Amino acid sequence: MVERLVVIGGDAAGMAAATQARRLLPHLEIVALEQGGWTSYSACGIPYLVGGEVEALDDLVVRTPQELRDEHRIDVRLHQEATGLDLDAGTVEVRDHQHRRSYRLAFDRLHLATGARPTRPDLPGIEGDGVRGVQTLEDARALLDLARTARCEDVVVVGGGYIGIEMAEAFVRRGARVALVERGPQLLGNLDADMAARLLRPLEEVGVEVRLGAEVTGFEPGRLHLAGGTALPADLAVLGLGVTPNAGLAAGAGIATGARGAVAVDRRQRTSAPGVYAAGDCATSFHLVSGRQVHVPLGTGANKQGRVAGTNLGGGYATFPGVVGTALTKVCDLDVARTGLTEREARAAGFEPVAATVESTTQAGYLPDPPPIALKLVAERGTGRLLGGQIVGGRGAGKRIDTIAVALHARLRVDEVVDLDLGYAPPMGTVWDPLAIAARRLA
Amino acid sequence: MVERLVVIGGDAAGMAAATQARRLLPHLEIVALEQGGWTSYSACGIPYLVGGEVEALDDLVVRTPQELRDEHRIDVRLHQEATGLDLDAGTVEVRDHQHRRSYRLAFDRLHLATGARPTRPDLPGIEGDGVRGVQTLEDARALLDLARTARCEDVVVVGGGYIGIEMAEAFVRRGARVALVERGPQLLGNLDADMAARLLRPLEEVGVEVRLGAEVTGFEPGRLHLAGGTALPADLAVLGLGVTPNAGLAAGAGIATGARGAVAVDRRQRTSAPGVYAAGDCATSFHLVSGRQVHVPLGTGANKQGRVAGTNLGGGYATFPGVVGTALTKVCDLDVARTGLTEREARAAGFEPVAATVESTTQAGYLPDPPPIALKLVAERGTGRLLGGQIVGGRGAGKRIDTIAVALHARLRVDEVVDLDLGYAPPMGTVWDPLAIAARRLA
Repeated sequence: MVERLVVIGGDAAGMAAATQARRLLPHLEIVALEQGGWTSYSACGIPYLVGGEVEALDDLVVRTPQELRDEHRIDVRLHQEATGLDLDAGTVEVRDHQHRRSYRLAFDRLHLATGARPTRPDLPGIEGDGVRGVQTLEDARALLDLARTARCEDVVVVGGGYIGIEMAEAFVRRGARVALVERGPQLLGNLDADMAARLLRPLEEVGVEVRLGAEVTGFEPGRLHLAGGTALPADLAVLGLGVTPNAGLAAGAGIATGARGAVAVDRRQRTSAPGVYAAGDCATSFHLVSGRQVHVPLGTGANKQGRVAGTNLGGGYATFPGVVGTALTKVCDLDVARTGLTEREARAAGFEPVAATVESTTQAGYLPDPPPIALKLVAERGTGRLLGGQIVGGRGAGKRIDTIAVALHARLRVDEVVDLDLGYAPPMGTVWDPLAIAARRLA
Repeated sequence: MVERLVVIGGDAAGMAAATQARRLLPHLEIVALEQGGWTSYSACGIPYLVGGEVEALDDLVVRTPQELRDEHRIDVRLHQEATGLDLDAGTVEVRDHQHRRSYRLAFDRLHLATGARPTRPDLPGIEGDGVRGVQTLEDARALLDLARTARCEDVVVVGGGYIGIEMAEAFVRRGARVALVERGPQLLGNLDADMAARLLRPLEEVGVEVRLGAEVTGFEPGRLHLAGGTALPADLAVLGLGVTPNAGLAAGAGIATGARGAVAVDRRQRTSAPGVYAAGDCATSFHLVSGRQVHVPLGTGANKQGRVAGTNLGGGYATFPGVVGTALTKVCDLDVARTGLTEREARAAGFEPVAATVESTTQAGYLPDPPPIALKLVAERGTGRLLGGQIVGGRGAGKRIDTIAVALHARLRVDEVVDLDLGYAPPMGTVWDPLAIAARRLA
C-alpha cells in the first residue's frame, strides 16, 4: 500500500520537507495543504517588493505550485486550511476556501509547517483595514497596492525590529512620510543598546521619524494613538511586532509546545506525537550557545529544519543540531548583524559576560572613504568562551557575522579567535581584522 | 643590568614584536635595525599607490620611526643593514649605509624579522634599471615615479600571482599598455585551474594582455624576450614571481632553516638558537590543514607571529598555532579568495580530495543585478573533513572566505558545515548560502 504524507504549510519548512521526502521515497503520496495562494516564497523579500526594488510579486516565489506538482509530484492544494487534527484517527480536517467545502484527509505521516503570524496586540481598532502585518504574499499584495496609491501619505510602522525598520525604509522609498514607533528604549531589541543606537541617525537622515518609548494605545482610520495622548496621522499602520507561532492546530491535538508556545521538536524534528514532525516558524529550535529551547522564526532555519524533517519522514536519518541566532539586515547604507548572545541575553542565560567593541573600517584606512565597521564581541568571564557578536557597518560588513557564527558553533575561546587566519587585502579589510582586535582585548 | 633586545627588520613582524616586548618589559633596551628608510608599512598597499588610489607614499606607513621612538622607546636605526651574526659572542655586525661605517652591536635577545625579497631568476638583463620587484617602499617609490612618467607606455608584468595581477591593473589605471606573462598554464597558482580561469576574461576586458605558458628568457632596455623568439615592448618589467625569505643572515650563523629556506621556528617563534626568535616573511609557519611546515609570506601572519615573538621575548608565554593559508585579492571587479588546500595541494599533502563548486549570487536573485559568486569546497574523501575553499565573486564575496577559514581551524566536516547558522537577508545573501550548498553536495 502506498503511504501518504500530509504536509501542512506550503512555504519553506513545508516544501523543503516535501521535496526531500520525495527524493528518498519515489512512491510516497504527498499532499500539501496551503492556506494562501502561493508556495515557497521569500517573506524576507516583501520589504524590497513594497519599496520597489523587486518588480513583481511573483519574483518572490521560489517554487510555484505547478513546479511542485510537475517536478516533485506533490499534490499541492491552495486555499485549503487545516482546521482540526485527529491523531488517533490519523486525519486532518480541511476547509477548502476556494470551493467552500470541508473534508477529512487521512495521513500515515504528518509534517507541520504552519509558520507564524504577525503578533497583533489586543488594542482598539487593530482589526481595521488600515492596520497590516507583514508575513504572507497576501499581506505583500495589500501593502504593495497601498504603497502605490497617493492616499498612503502617512505611514506609521509599529515595532522597531528587523521587519519594522525594513518596512519604514520601504515606504520612505515610496515617498510616504514615515514614523517608526517602538515601545522599548531602543530599536532592534536583539542587539545591545550601544550597537542599536548607531542606527538612529541614519534612519532619521533618510526621513524616518523614530519614536522610542512610545506605546501605541489604539488605531482608528487615519490615525494612531500613543500613550500620553499624542495622535499620529496614519493612512496605514504596519505591524512589526514580531510573530507568534501557529501552533494552535498541534496544541489542540495534544502535541507538546515549548518556547513561546511553538511546537516542541527534538533534533530529528519529531514532535511529541509519533509520526508527526514539525519545522520552521511554528517550531522550536535548540540554541547552541545558551543550551535552551528557543523560537527563532527565520527562513534559513526553516529550510534546514524542513530538509531534516523530510529526510526523517522519508525513512532516512538526519538531525538538526541547532542555531546560534544569526540574523542580518540592512538599515539605510548600514549592514546590521548579530549572532549568539548579546550581553543582556548572556546574563539572562546565566553567563557573566564581558564585552569589547572595536571601531574600524572594512578597507585599509589609506584607501579613499573606507566604510566604517563597529564590531562587538561578548565572551564569558573566566573561561573566555565566545558567546556572541554584533556588527554595524558599511556595505559588506554584515556577512562577516558568519565568521563569528562558525566560531560559536566550534565553541572557540577568544584567545583562539585572535589566532584565526582571516583574509586580508587592502580593498577588503585591515591587516588586523576587527574581530581579532576585539578578541585580543577580551583575551 | 638592563638587557638589550635587537630586532632586525623594521616592518610588521619586527615592530609588532618590539612594541609587544616593550609593553611587558618597560626597562628593556630595544634597538631596531632597518635596512631601508621606513618602518611598519603596508607592502600590500603598493599596487594601490602605483595605481593612484592611494595618494601619497607616506599613507602606507602605519608607524613612523619617530612614533616608535617617542611612543614605544624603540631605538629605530634606519639604513642600517645587519651583515653578520655571531651567536657565541652575542653580536650583530651592522653596516650603517647612511654614515658609511660598520659597527658591532651586542644583544641579550635577538629577533629576526628580515622579511623576504622578490624572487629574481638568473636571466640575462634582470639586473637592469627597467626591471623592478615589488616589496619595499623604495620599490614603491621607483615604480610610482615610473608610473607617472610618459615614458612608461609599455609595461610587462612577469608572474601571474597576486602581486602580478594587482600591478598589472595598477599600470592599466595609469594608462599604460600592460602584458601579464605567466610561465604556468594558469594565473594564481594557489587556486585550482577551474577557479583561476574565471579571471582571464575580466583582466582582458580592462585591457591586460594575458599570456599563459610564456617563459621569459631575458630582458634588455625597452624589451623583454620570451621563449620561442617573441619579444614584447617593455619600458618597464615588473617582477611578480613570489618572494624568497631573507634567511641568509640566520643560516650564516648556523640557525636552522626549513620550508623554502625560511628560518625554522617553533610555536613560540623560537629559532634553533637559544634566545633568538624569528617571525614574518623570513620564517616558516605551521599549516593546520596539511600538518606541514610552510612558508606563507603575508602581512596578517607577520603581525600575529611578531606579537607572539614579542610576548615571549618580553618574558611572557604565547604560541602561534599556525595558518590555514587564507589569502585575498581583488581582480578588476572580482574578489578572489582562498583558504586551506586546493585540490592539487590536498593531493600533494597525501589526502584524496573531493570537490564541489556552486555558482550563486551574493544577493537574493530577485533583487536587481545580484553580483555573482562561485564557491568551491575541497574535502577529504571518506572522512568528509573540510580541507579548503576558493571564492571568485562580486564585491563583498571575498571576505566570506573567513567563514571557511574558521571551519578549517575548527576541523569541521562538510556535514557540519551544512548546518552552520549563517546569516541571510535579501540584500546580503541567499537563503541557502553557497557554502552550505557546496557542503551538502559533498556530504
